[in-house]
Amino acid sequence: MCHLSSFLVALSILASYIQQGASYEYVTKNFTVPVDHFSFTTNATFEMRYLVNDSSWDADSGPIFFYTGNEGDIKLFAENTGFMWELAVEMRAKVVFAEHRYYGESLPFGKDSFSNEKNLGYLTAHQALEDYVDLITALRGDNRIPVIVFGGSYGGMLSAWFRMKYPHIVQGAIAASAPILEFEGMNKCNAFYRIVTSDFQSAADDCRYNIRNSWDAFNQIVKSADGLAWLSKAFQLCKPLTKAADVKDVKDFLSEVYVNLAMTDYPYATNFLMPLPANPILEVCEHLKAPNLKEKELLTQIFKAASVYLNYTGTTKCLDLEDADGPSLGGNGWGFQSCTEMVMPMCSNGVDDMFEPSPWDMNKYVADCKKTFAWVKPQPFLVPKRYGGLELARLSSNIIFSNGLRDPWTSGGVVESLTPSVVSIIIPEGAHHLDLRASNPADPNSVRNARILYKKHIRKWIREYRGTV
Amino acid sequence: MCHLSSFLVALSILASYIQQGASYEYVTKNFTVPVDHFSFTTNATFEMRYLVNDSSWDADSGPIFFYTGNEGDIKLFAENTGFMWELAVEMRAKVVFAEHRYYGESLPFGKDSFSNEKNLGYLTAHQALEDYVDLITALRGDNRIPVIVFGGSYGGMLSAWFRMKYPHIVQGAIAASAPILEFEGMNKCNAFYRIVTSDFQSAADDCRYNIRNSWDAFNQIVKSADGLAWLSKAFQLCKPLTKAADVKDVKDFLSEVYVNLAMTDYPYATNFLMPLPANPILEVCEHLKAPNLKEKELLTQIFKAASVYLNYTGTTKCLDLEDADGPSLGGNGWGFQSCTEMVMPMCSNGVDDMFEPSPWDMNKYVADCKKTFAWVKPQPFLVPKRYGGLELARLSSNIIFSNGLRDPWTSGGVVESLTPSVVSIIIPEGAHHLDLRASNPADPNSVRNARILYKKHIRKWIREYRGTV
Repeated sequence: MCHLSSFLVALSILASYIQQGASYEYVTKNFTVPVDHFSFTTNATFEMRYLVNDSSWDADSGPIFFYTGNEGDIKLFAENTGFMWELAVEMRAKVVFAEHRYYGESLPFGKDSFSNEKNLGYLTAHQALEDYVDLITALRGDNRIPVIVFGGSYGGMLSAWFRMKYPHIVQGAIAASAPILEFEGMNKCNAFYRIVTSDFQSAADDCRYNIRNSWDAFNQIVKSADGLAWLSKAFQLCKPLTKAADVKDVKDFLSEVYVNLAMTDYPYATNFLMPLPANPILEVCEHLKAPNLKEKELLTQIFKAASVYLNYTGTTKCLDLEDADGPSLGGNGWGFQSCTEMVMPMCSNGVDDMFEPSPWDMNKYVADCKKTFAWVKPQPFLVPKRYGGLELARLSSNIIFSNGLRDPWTSGGVVESLTPSVVSIIIPEGAHHLDLRASNPADPNSVRNARILYKKHIRKWIREYRGTV
Repeated sequence: MCHLSSFLVALSILASYIQQGASYEYVTKNFTVPVDHFSFTTNATFEMRYLVNDSSWDADSGPIFFYTGNEGDIKLFAENTGFMWELAVEMRAKVVFAEHRYYGESLPFGKDSFSNEKNLGYLTAHQALEDYVDLITALRGDNRIPVIVFGGSYGGMLSAWFRMKYPHIVQGAIAASAPILEFEGMNKCNAFYRIVTSDFQSAADDCRYNIRNSWDAFNQIVKSADGLAWLSKAFQLCKPLTKAADVKDVKDFLSEVYVNLAMTDYPYATNFLMPLPANPILEVCEHLKAPNLKEKELLTQIFKAASVYLNYTGTTKCLDLEDADGPSLGGNGWGFQSCTEMVMPMCSNGVDDMFEPSPWDMNKYVADCKKTFAWVKPQPFLVPKRYGGLELARLSSNIIFSNGLRDPWTSGGVVESLTPSVVSIIIPEGAHHLDLRASNPADPNSVRNARILYKKHIRKWIREYRGTV
């Protein structure tokens, strides 16, 4: 299983959403920031992009709602964070979406940003945070304007870390589905895949067993040339398999599909790269609920199940396994971050989860990274040292960590309130940062209530900030 | 007046102390750290030096006392921080003094560390803090050992910032005479020189007036060739003055002497580069207490006064004005820091203080920096943005800020307690971090009481840390 690309694959899916037209209005601006905030070895600067809307803003007393952009085009996040837009109208806030360096159009060295280590090496979370510090400082000017940061997933990690490290800059953080504990020594490496498994189990008890059994069925069927041919045809592969070892690509692809389904298992139809029905895992497991499916029958059902995700509209002509591999080095920002700071140990054992056994192997991880980024060495202890996990969170204030129990990233989330102002919100029916999305009639009560609570905390943070004038 | 070198001059004085033999025992060790903690553009590492003594340490339950080295040879700080050594025996602590990168022997690029911007550019406070994070993490290993950081002056700023930014790494900070508010927009630029003036005023009311009047006397006397010759002889200058403009060097030199006297106005004899009597300003002002001294008589008395500082033992043959200029680029670490992050606005007006009027002029400051470090531009807002002054301090915990009212750096100190655990201690009779020095029979009660209070807080911090296991 390719542990590197989990965030990324979800994003490559999300990324095309924006092609379908923006739902929110904003002005696109640029802001000049240093390439390196932490040394004086270069004076290079670049233009970071941000989106701003102040149509609802009360310039006398309104706050700034600031999205700490994560690993993708910022327009993508603007389109998928409806909660911020809705709340901004109600609270008369200025809305800002800041693009993370090395994503979208915020490329420190333009098209050469990914071409060598000297150019790419400034892609770090802390450099991005200081970009945001500079932007907020400029937006605030000499005025005392409360700033609330919002972020989902890695963006939620950035929001939480922002408040932990710069509480004088931002007055509070809504950190949705932010796996700040998905790091060395902080959690169990198999939690992620257990949650995915549990999502499938909850849809149909046998669904996970059938998926688990499928791995061996794949391995068996490709032992013969006939089997290879059958599988290539049954799965409508664009490039038929030519040898047994190729089956790994099929299995990796499917593993990522299951993970993505768990992340995007929303209660209403969503319309990303692959349009998805409401509660897609329920539909997937419709095909896998019969007990003890075997061999070709099992694999046929697996394909039908995966097609819910891969071909819901029936327009996909053939299945291109390379689509699920992250983008190549030209633009592979998250791949680089995963191979430097964002080392998130994950493992599966095929017993407590439905995946093939895959122990966490740091040496293999390092070796895999070296293939793409020859000069870097993953630093699994960097995030624990710098951002401190629960210990730093506990010593902070004004952070809401929200986690959905259907979201595998909850494995690295803060799931207990640490202080009266460092609060954990659990959304039992929630997938990956459902709470940040626009309100929807199909939203469960838990997410409605969560949003009400966020509003209450945000109002309190703003009052406290004003009270200290 | 040369605002750049105030810390530095004091240190060049302190630096020779260690040549007189160490009073404390320690093992000198090296530890490998990355040259750049904040990018992945280089894998270069270097050996930072640290001193360690665990002869009193209770390895089962003793804390680590960690000095966050500042701008000088770490042995200097080990020798001048007797309080840590004394308390370590009492509290069975391991003592560690960590050397700041680019000082002493902790040179990232050896003798080339200062030769160009690519080598020197990694000299920043935050890089140094991350060196300390790495060292503490290694020292702690898998054990839950409380770590208390100590620092004086810039080292105190580092200690305070360490706790603010990494409270999961260090459990509390004693930040002595740490001017974390000596930055743009945080304080009044003339406070520093007003405190120096007030020190001289308190010794003899006319002392400051005579000093203030001396500047004009210098300017007048050098208008004639006879006057120049007289002054060169009266001040026993190694290199006689050749033109009127040279008098600026004499005045700058004396200004720095007065500042240094204020910083080191300790209640007992100290034995730095220039051995000093107890309460040296009292002795200085003995020569300047007569009212309305004028012209040559005034200047003669000024020289006698300055000689208390410059030639207390009577062994100095002639006065070398270049001694007071900071070291040259080869090793001018603090000069570089002053021209990048550590921009501390200072000014004098000759009315509220005894110095020549010298307004704060950022443009001139930038131009002066450019002469030495062509490629850097001072960043006056970097420290306010990153370290947040009072706002961040207020949101932190477990920091003691101590300030002596005789210390000009109190102008940038935290002089009011901000929370029950972010505490300000005022030592009315204290000069620059007197409290960190070894106990002395001449210590005023205020400093004895301060140290008792530090101990109480440190014990509490350790208890809290253990309680959260």
